[in-house]
Amino acid sequence: MLSELAASGPTTEFRTVWWDAGAVCLIDQTRLPHTQAIITCRTLADVAHAIKAMQVRGAPAIGITAAYGLALVAQQTAVFSDLPTMLALLEAARETLNAQRPTAINLSWATARMLRVAERAAYMQAEPPTLAARLLAEAHTIHAEDLAMCHAIGRHGASLIPERGHVLTHCNAGGLATAGYGTALAPIRTAHAAGRAMHVYVDETRPFLQGARLTAWELQQANIPLTLITDSMAGFMMQQGAIDCVIVGADRIVANGDVANKIGTYTLAVLAQAHQLPFYVAAPSSTIDVTLADGSEIPIEQRDPREVTQLAGQQIAPLGVAAAHPAFDITPHHLITAIITEQGVITPPFGPTLAAHAHAALAPAE
Amino acid sequence: MLSELAASGPTTEFRTVWWDAGAVCLIDQTRLPHTQAIITCRTLADVAHAIKAMQVRGAPAIGITAAYGLALVAQQTAVFSDLPTMLALLEAARETLNAQRPTAINLSWATARMLRVAERAAYMQAEPPTLAARLLAEAHTIHAEDLAMCHAIGRHGASLIPERGHVLTHCNAGGLATAGYGTALAPIRTAHAAGRAMHVYVDETRPFLQGARLTAWELQQANIPLTLITDSMAGFMMQQGAIDCVIVGADRIVANGDVANKIGTYTLAVLAQAHQLPFYVAAPSSTIDVTLADGSEIPIEQRDPREVTQLAGQQIAPLGVAAAHPAFDITPHHLITAIITEQGVITPPFGPTLAAHAHAALAPAE
Repeated sequence: MLSELAASGPTTEFRTVWWDAGAVCLIDQTRLPHTQAIITCRTLADVAHAIKAMQVRGAPAIGITAAYGLALVAQQTAVFSDLPTMLALLEAARETLNAQRPTAINLSWATARMLRVAERAAYMQAEPPTLAARLLAEAHTIHAEDLAMCHAIGRHGASLIPERGHVLTHCNAGGLATAGYGTALAPIRTAHAAGRAMHVYVDETRPFLQGARLTAWELQQANIPLTLITDSMAGFMMQQGAIDCVIVGADRIVANGDVANKIGTYTLAVLAQAHQLPFYVAAPSSTIDVTLADGSEIPIEQRDPREVTQLAGQQIAPLGVAAAHPAFDITPHHLITAIITEQGVITPPFGPTLAAHAHAALAPAE
Repeated sequence: MLSELAASGPTTEFRTVWWDAGAVCLIDQTRLPHTQAIITCRTLADVAHAIKAMQVRGAPAIGITAAYGLALVAQQTAVFSDLPTMLALLEAARETLNAQRPTAINLSWATARMLRVAERAAYMQAEPPTLAARLLAEAHTIHAEDLAMCHAIGRHGASLIPERGHVLTHCNAGGLATAGYGTALAPIRTAHAAGRAMHVYVDETRPFLQGARLTAWELQQANIPLTLITDSMAGFMMQQGAIDCVIVGADRIVANGDVANKIGTYTLAVLAQAHQLPFYVAAPSSTIDVTLADGSEIPIEQRDPREVTQLAGQQIAPLGVAAAHPAFDITPHHLITAIITEQGVITPPFGPTLAAHAHAALAPAE
């Protein structure tokens, strides 16, 4: 399997990120759904820019991309560097990559894992090209594991979707946010594949419109019935009895079960509670960060306000108007019905089981 | 004053709708804030289209526009019609206008008021040109009264805004939604004019972006500090303690105090309650409809889903994706702290006082 992976990574319906002939390739998510353009990152700067500019987004997909980014650095530096220099360059590259998006933990989780492999190889006095090969193999493993975890999330979560259920989701926690199958969309995909009738309400997810552009596209491709709504319609739909449950992804889940996810998630959780609807979070255990006690410690990325005042390059607000753009919000654990990871469905109290899942995720695969 | 009004209507900072030489003039609100284009409606069809296409929007402004629309019909038909024909044509015109936007009550309130004046004039055997003149005078009166009511709402509501208060508003319930001063924005304008420090958070209000395009523009013109946010950020801002109260307008307030307003309003009311923040509704008493017992009886306008899948003429979702576009939602009275009309501040139980305000609004001015 590894030799097949060495070519590109696991095979899925569509590819979010893959390795091709010494470059990190991405589908440009800023241009979907109208244009399926491929970005070829040949340098660390290319990879960092793609993450910052959200050409690749979604916590797990960012982690995979960063892992390939470090494999790229290793391959390029192995030609002219000794081991200490390689390690120093990889450490610097890790810091560059981690700085691009502060909220999602999968980014720093993936780069830390890559650095551990590099350090182990260096400790064993591996030759620089061998170290580079091990890093590429590790990136492929992270990639393949993500896909496997998403399928497991689908199996665990599918039973939570009622027959003929109406599911609301926010942002894109689908194949494009991962190696290709999704986190929040995984239970939906799995239930749909099992022939279960369902309907998905998709929040458009301003300002970046991941719902309108990406989730709607994925569901359309998979022939899963959907209705696109503006974020402001979710409360009305719940009030009308049109929603049975909410499933979202996560960018970081901390020790007590508080969840950072795309801005607007917290509002949905408040609305779900007010309407007594289940509110589910689906994420691989690489998203769990037990080093933080609660959500107040999670750094919230503040993005350029022009992403709010402009849309697709068009100015929508008057020039000179101030805008805020927190890219994420924190949903407190008491609003969450269950957290679905690849290891199972966790119900409150979340703390002990989250710690166990996180621990299992950190254990070496071999 | 009436002779001055006869020229155009009351004078404000900017003009939303006015009468000019036998035509109904409007600022085209679909083109703000970038272009301040004037639309000149010379026929009933022009007026109906302007209302349907939301070139003029905001419940009170729609009412004023419809009143001028009937004055236009009267003026044009007076040339060739006898009284019964004029009345029949006015009745048909009323039905055409009322059908353009079903949710806001001010439209049918204004047209009913115009028809009563026409019927009284016909009963008194007025000459057709006299009837037309009376209808134009009545439209000017509705226009001037709206401005006076908005200023009164400002006086009553200003004290509800705390010193250095952070106020969240949704959609545009400002001067552009009325004769020129606003409903939800009236307390903000009045408090600001009195030198009170404050900050307004403006929901962009998808899909039509009335917040980003119109409210932001109005507040910028009035030098009132503001921060534009996406609708999905309101919950986060409340959670962060950045909001002290919410003020919105209304398209219809029914007997028990349930309120129809722009889609997204209900979500804000749920969020305000979850954060124990006051939630205020500001509207002239022409918005009160005591013929309906509760909000479930209010017709919710379903608009073209392309207003969700497209933005400023650009397709944002994949082609063929289904979307919903309920233009309004219903906020139940138990989520509302107070309703501000030109007659004062109404606190729960709303029923009896709403009935009294509605009755006073129906009484003839003379």
